[in-house]
Amino acid sequence: MFDKFHEECGVVGIYGHDEAANLANLGIFTLQHRGQESAGVASADSLDVYCYKAMGHVADIFTPTVINGLPGNKAIGHTRYSTTGDSAHLNAQPFCVTTNKGRMALAHNGNITNAAQIRHELEAEGAIFSASSDTEVVLHLISRSRERTIPAALRDALLALEGAFSLVLLTKNELIVARDPNGFRPMAIGEILKDGRTTYCFASETCAFDLIEARYIGDVDAGEMVIVNEKGLTRERYAPRRAKSQCVFEHVYFSRPDSIVFGRPVVQSRERMGQYLFEQMPIAADVVVPVPDSGVAAAIGYSAASGIPFRMGLIRNHHVGRTFIEPKQADRDFGVKLKLNPVRHLIEGKRVVLVDDSIVRGTTSAKIVRMVRSAGATEVHMRISCPPTISPCYYGVDTPDQEQLIAARKTIDEIRDFIGADTLEFLSLDNLRRAVTDTSKEFCYACYTGKYPTDIVPAESLLTTH
Amino acid sequence: MFDKFHEECGVVGIYGHDEAANLANLGIFTLQHRGQESAGVASADSLDVYCYKAMGHVADIFTPTVINGLPGNKAIGHTRYSTTGDSAHLNAQPFCVTTNKGRMALAHNGNITNAAQIRHELEAEGAIFSASSDTEVVLHLISRSRERTIPAALRDALLALEGAFSLVLLTKNELIVARDPNGFRPMAIGEILKDGRTTYCFASETCAFDLIEARYIGDVDAGEMVIVNEKGLTRERYAPRRAKSQCVFEHVYFSRPDSIVFGRPVVQSRERMGQYLFEQMPIAADVVVPVPDSGVAAAIGYSAASGIPFRMGLIRNHHVGRTFIEPKQADRDFGVKLKLNPVRHLIEGKRVVLVDDSIVRGTTSAKIVRMVRSAGATEVHMRISCPPTISPCYYGVDTPDQEQLIAARKTIDEIRDFIGADTLEFLSLDNLRRAVTDTSKEFCYACYTGKYPTDIVPAESLLTTH
Amino acid sequence: MFDKFHEECGVVGIYGHDEAANLANLGIFTLQHRGQESAGVASADSLDVYCYKAMGHVADIFTPTVINGLPGNKAIGHTRYSTTGDSAHLNAQPFCVTTNKGRMALAHNGNITNAAQIRHELEAEGAIFSASSDTEVVLHLISRSRERTIPAALRDALLALEGAFSLVLLTKNELIVARDPNGFRPMAIGEILKDGRTTYCFASETCAFDLIEARYIGDVDAGEMVIVNEKGLTRERYAPRRAKSQCVFEHVYFSRPDSIVFGRPVVQSRERMGQYLFEQMPIAADVVVPVPDSGVAAAIGYSAASGIPFRMGLIRNHHVGRTFIEPKQADRDFGVKLKLNPVRHLIEGKRVVLVDDSIVRGTTSAKIVRMVRSAGATEVHMRISCPPTISPCYYGVDTPDQEQLIAARKTIDEIRDFIGADTLEFLSLDNLRRAVTDTSKEFCYACYTGKYPTDIVPAESLLTTH
Amino acid sequence: MFDKFHEECGVVGIYGHDEAANLANLGIFTLQHRGQESAGVASADSLDVYCYKAMGHVADIFTPTVINGLPGNKAIGHTRYSTTGDSAHLNAQPFCVTTNKGRMALAHNGNITNAAQIRHELEAEGAIFSASSDTEVVLHLISRSRERTIPAALRDALLALEGAFSLVLLTKNELIVARDPNGFRPMAIGEILKDGRTTYCFASETCAFDLIEARYIGDVDAGEMVIVNEKGLTRERYAPRRAKSQCVFEHVYFSRPDSIVFGRPVVQSRERMGQYLFEQMPIAADVVVPVPDSGVAAAIGYSAASGIPFRMGLIRNHHVGRTFIEPKQADRDFGVKLKLNPVRHLIEGKRVVLVDDSIVRGTTSAKIVRMVRSAGATEVHMRISCPPTISPCYYGVDTPDQEQLIAARKTIDEIRDFIGADTLEFLSLDNLRRAVTDTSKEFCYACYTGKYPTDIVPAESLLTTH
Repeated sequence: MFDKFHEECGVVGIYGHDEAANLANLGIFTLQHRGQESAGVASADSLDVYCYKAMGHVADIFTPTVINGLPGNKAIGHTRYSTTGDSAHLNAQPFCVTTNKGRMALAHNGNITNAAQIRHELEAEGAIFSASSDTEVVLHLISRSRERTIPAALRDALLALEGAFSLVLLTKNELIVARDPNGFRPMAIGEILKDGRTTYCFASETCAFDLIEARYIGDVDAGEMVIVNEKGLTRERYAPRRAKSQCVFEHVYFSRPDSIVFGRPVVQSRERMGQYLFEQMPIAADVVVPVPDSGVAAAIGYSAASGIPFRMGLIRNHHVGRTFIEPKQADRDFGVKLKLNPVRHLIEGKRVVLVDDSIVRGTTSAKIVRMVRSAGATEVHMRISCPPTISPCYYGVDTPDQEQLIAARKTIDEIRDFIGADTLEFLSLDNLRRAVTDTSKEFCYACYTGKYPTDIVPAESLLTTH
Repeated sequence: MFDKFHEECGVVGIYGHDEAANLANLGIFTLQHRGQESAGVASADSLDVYCYKAMGHVADIFTPTVINGLPGNKAIGHTRYSTTGDSAHLNAQPFCVTTNKGRMALAHNGNITNAAQIRHELEAEGAIFSASSDTEVVLHLISRSRERTIPAALRDALLALEGAFSLVLLTKNELIVARDPNGFRPMAIGEILKDGRTTYCFASETCAFDLIEARYIGDVDAGEMVIVNEKGLTRERYAPRRAKSQCVFEHVYFSRPDSIVFGRPVVQSRERMGQYLFEQMPIAADVVVPVPDSGVAAAIGYSAASGIPFRMGLIRNHHVGRTFIEPKQADRDFGVKLKLNPVRHLIEGKRVVLVDDSIVRGTTSAKIVRMVRSAGATEVHMRISCPPTISPCYYGVDTPDQEQLIAARKTIDEIRDFIGADTLEFLSLDNLRRAVTDTSKEFCYACYTGKYPTDIVPAESLLTTH
Repeated sequence: MFDKFHEECGVVGIYGHDEAANLANLGIFTLQHRGQESAGVASADSLDVYCYKAMGHVADIFTPTVINGLPGNKAIGHTRYSTTGDSAHLNAQPFCVTTNKGRMALAHNGNITNAAQIRHELEAEGAIFSASSDTEVVLHLISRSRERTIPAALRDALLALEGAFSLVLLTKNELIVARDPNGFRPMAIGEILKDGRTTYCFASETCAFDLIEARYIGDVDAGEMVIVNEKGLTRERYAPRRAKSQCVFEHVYFSRPDSIVFGRPVVQSRERMGQYLFEQMPIAADVVVPVPDSGVAAAIGYSAASGIPFRMGLIRNHHVGRTFIEPKQADRDFGVKLKLNPVRHLIEGKRVVLVDDSIVRGTTSAKIVRMVRSAGATEVHMRISCPPTISPCYYGVDTPDQEQLIAARKTIDEIRDFIGADTLEFLSLDNLRRAVTDTSKEFCYACYTGKYPTDIVPAESLLTTH
Repeated sequence: MFDKFHEECGVVGIYGHDEAANLANLGIFTLQHRGQESAGVASADSLDVYCYKAMGHVADIFTPTVINGLPGNKAIGHTRYSTTGDSAHLNAQPFCVTTNKGRMALAHNGNITNAAQIRHELEAEGAIFSASSDTEVVLHLISRSRERTIPAALRDALLALEGAFSLVLLTKNELIVARDPNGFRPMAIGEILKDGRTTYCFASETCAFDLIEARYIGDVDAGEMVIVNEKGLTRERYAPRRAKSQCVFEHVYFSRPDSIVFGRPVVQSRERMGQYLFEQMPIAADVVVPVPDSGVAAAIGYSAASGIPFRMGLIRNHHVGRTFIEPKQADRDFGVKLKLNPVRHLIEGKRVVLVDDSIVRGTTSAKIVRMVRSAGATEVHMRISCPPTISPCYYGVDTPDQEQLIAARKTIDEIRDFIGADTLEFLSLDNLRRAVTDTSKEFCYACYTGKYPTDIVPAESLLTTH
């Protein structure tokens, strides 16, 4: 469904192309499903690092004039969701600063769990902070490192960090891309071969490569740092090998179905989720309906496995806006109706299997079930393509507090009653593992299990000592 | 597919609601698939008629401040596609003018085929025109009518018009809605019953009713004028009964699948188109893939009929923008790639049935076929959910000139070769008729047959005498 | 002083220059003191008439891109003050329409006193009106004229009008400039001779010529129509000769001191006003201080005549804005203080002669006197460079209603007490006549005498019959 | 004259008022002559420090909504000229950061001459910089200070600085205002007494006090730090006493004539400059004409001393814009003509004394002289109200490089010939001293003498070692 979770961002890096800033722009244009409230591109040539960022949609921000003002053959890009209340422009990325190691720009995806602690230590030593973002912490650590080269200083910095990060760092001479030792967030590598010349590309998802015609050649590894400069591409392990914890929610919800994430096609995982959902609890029904857009692939998989016909019984309005006046007599489902509308002809008199990717607070699901019943469904069977979400994510997904998670407080039967469905089934953890082919235990399921792969010191406890 | 055809607009009318302007706003918000480049709302109370219109998206234009500046219990709304080169702001609707019959606002959907001729006559009598829109002609005719009441004057005006129009006229005292005698463009009637009070609603498509919780109760009839004022709703036939010619392309492409148009569910027509496409030319294939969003329902129908699995093998990026710099090394398909991306996992090694709603110039279809092949399809079978488009529309659809229509110049085999498909099949005219249940010959198929239901004097010949 | 009166606008016309639209733009840039809330330029070549207008300041509206989109060797321009509550964009000029005589654009300065009456007649015949401006009436009359040529049709139209107008009309073939038979509003003629080619220029004030390096060669005469086309410039009297009534307030307040208006240097008139003000009532004082900017020249004249030193004892802040929050504890003079500040060093302990151009409601004058006293003036002697304003203007100056004019309700002594001055002297009517060298009785003084040079039917009485 | 010099900014501080942010806004509104391209206000209550800054004019930026979003009873404001090519938004002030001493906002006027050096040292220790402004350096020094209180840490920081600064620092608990030990830039103290409560106000010029009805009570002393918190106002000398070097150019050009700067009325200094200019070289002439606005007061002084009549013979157009297309046939003075126009009636056939505040490159003066001659002046005698500018300023005035200063390369006779005047006289250094009553040698004249009151290490030499 929509608007239930948010991740921080999508990132892109380009090295070795005359139109580097434009390729970065096109890359983040395709990644806007990961966050579309601010966007930025930094480029670099041998003289300087250039940066432009603003609130708004990629295509509105990066006009040809802006793109032409970003010279150089290397660039990074970032698109971002801004959480309510943050001073949005200040936190827009990339961050571009001057340090003792020269000018540099940094963009990152994820959440550094010890950022508040490091920040306190840096502040104690006199560092000043312009924004509330984690990213600034990394720049301070690079600057304070005694190492002389930027790759070495970045290594120093990364070893101090805990949590989730996939980052791109741009200087006058190089592009460096790194992933945290657990590999929570994705970072794919692509290449464009043209006229005997190689352009290296990096992106949160491979769908960014398709538009710029780059070929996917693999992922930046967990704990790995990839340095691209005029000598070419060098891969270096900066942290000891550790068990991976790739975010399974990338496959459940965040990533586009046309992307390959963590080496696996997202659409494949989703179709299997649908298939296993049917196998877990076969039921007689007339039609399988996805909650668009994220539920579509799982619903197709459910339909294929069950033989129950797939129908687009809910239509999504892609035109959005924030400033609607709710009519006084509107029923309580107005907010959902602005985005979704049932197709009565497909639903009326039918037993409907409704496939969605998750239930967070339960209120939106309740509205959708109500909407489907009011369109004439005789039965509504809700199927969720992952287990109940019982714990918040500390690795870059903007989940609500635990007390707001309905599955942390209620049994499945209680949730079913709350949302008003006839039956409710969540995908089991084992089946989710099977769906993403997690044979080597490389995924993180903490939001479903409460078992976190790293030590977590809640940021709040530190911040309140401020 | 997208951007191949454009219609002038979507219109809405509201009578008898304290929040009339906001309901009109919400109505046109849902109709933006019919045109989203300018939007306007006019409201009226007993003192005056108020109007606000601007270029841009509905949600950006109609902020709460703007809505609150539009008082009264009746309103009309309009959303519009503006063709390249027209002086867009001038032609935004509604048109709001002062006449000898008081202030009034008018919005319309369609194309008045004798507008240029009437305009010449009016100009000869001294009328002056601010814009190039048909709508202004109607206002002049109302004003010049010797009739004293507005309904009577509008009747006078309508009888002078030829072609396609579904219009809403707002004055201080009434809302009048009318459809041309052929009924080319749709106009649905809805009502909201609340606290013993009835609000009458009118909209190009019923999906506008769903958001404002109005109940669909039928259509304004062809040749009918519906007057709503403080005495209630009056229906009046202003023109002699004539054979209907409802635009079949509303069912093929324009309307949202969740709408009921001309009394028929759009989604039903589209699924049948897919079904008949298969029946016309059964073929062995591995997967049925729609060109989103308009091809989805037909592809589902094709899949259901054929048993070939349905897959969303092309992903559409709903974030749009107009100002992209095409990279120098981009292949010729860049423009399509900004909007569509194939899902390699679903396509690779497969025989693909590709379902689209139409082929106009053929160039976009060629790019899509190429894109699907490059994602690994072994065969591409293109299926089009209507017959070949061989003639331009004079009734409100912005088709290119005949010489640009590939089907007007090439055989089906030649088109197949041009787009690079293995096979190509268009829905037959008979099957299109069956799909929309046109048992009483109530639809217009002129773009497929070249047989127009009214006399057409090409506008150009008149305009050049200017 | 400022913001007490407003006139409708400044107009410009250019014929015979490759950069006609830009010269029109530069012309209205210099005329913004006559109105700066909306601006427009229309240009024409042999193919069409092009128009661009918007709310805002000239330099913000006419970017190089906009100017480059206005081709042709002839153009007109208009800058305008919009009165509160008018639907500003609708009334922005030039008006650009299509008629039976082709496309044309019209801009005008003044007030047509029988516009409402003509409008009613036109409406009765079926004409429709988009805006509330007088200008539209003229276009309707041109269109309805049975004359075939535009000059002849314009003559027809002009003969139907009463009141004040200086207008410029642009078509594909010609530029026509006309002034009403009384010659209320100014219209100067200039020429640029370059490379054996003549560019004809027209403007409300000659300061517009200085920037574009045109030479002032005289005025369009009252009752005259000047036609410029490829045959050159033709002057034609369209109305019988009549006593002139040039607006004296152009010399008192509106026009820039560097302009020649009605053939007389404005600065000369103003210096004489100051001189005669002293001669009317000599007084002992220490310093002469103008209320800037309009009082400056008269204060200099007063100082020269009296020998009392001139000082800029009030500083004007030219940065303006409309949205200030008045501090809760602000004194009642906050609004004036945003624009004016006294220079204590020049005023403290001094007997001050304060020279302003007029007193309308009296409230602003009272604030200024209070401000000057609070800066330490021991005496304040207010001198006004025209007689008491007792009657509204119907010829293009936006005076308040008569009941708001303090001089219509109070004696001079009462006004003096109201504004808190020690003495108050208005320029006598005879001296105002001498100041503008009105030896042939060519000026209108109606706002000081209540004697109007034309029959006035108050517009309200007509409008209320609507 | 205009646009020849620019200073960095105007600053304001407010403590102890419910509408602190609005008073800061009004204060910087009056200081826009010191820089009007970006503006910012920060406010603070006991919970946090809030900041809003943007490019543009004060009145456009600080809408009521923005002001209402800046709570607290203390605030600082800043308005700024941005030099071409700086990344303007990044350098807008106040700077607002989080440090180990809490949140704080800082705004400053002046130029810290050892900023580049300190910056290098800070970078060497790992500090990172977001912008190129001096201000950030001060914040780093405060943060790195081992002192625990903010006043003590600020003292540490200030002692490390060289050059010119008048700064305001805002925290959750206090407002601190400081001036460099030389006292280059002004900083006045004012107070509002209302209902037994005192509001302390600080501003670059006293004209800011007039609008908010604060009373001027003296200046922050050179080398002084003024701390205002809930205990009241404390003054503290943080640096040993040193010879003062107040910028004389504040009296010559920058400050508004209605301000008291460095304890002296600006208008008095300027009138004396004019008087002494006449006394230096009496000449027979018909009229004294200022180059507005900055030359007005000196011209009045010249006229008073000489008995030659003062006239506003050049009119300034206060409507500005940057995007004009210069007409192809425009003469070389187009740029000046956009802003100034001669009044022929006042100049024609006259011997003109032209009074301006300075000559920088000489090109603008040449254009003005040419313009005055073309308006018919028989003689043009240029008088400059300060000595020849031969050296750049390192203390906050944006002078061009020395090689661009005409007086650094040419004799006065050569300059006279270059600008085309009949005679040219600069105010002597001694007379400038007398004009500003510099009896105690408290002013800086380095731009006229090349003798700088502090050691200067040109910033460039450091920056190039980067």
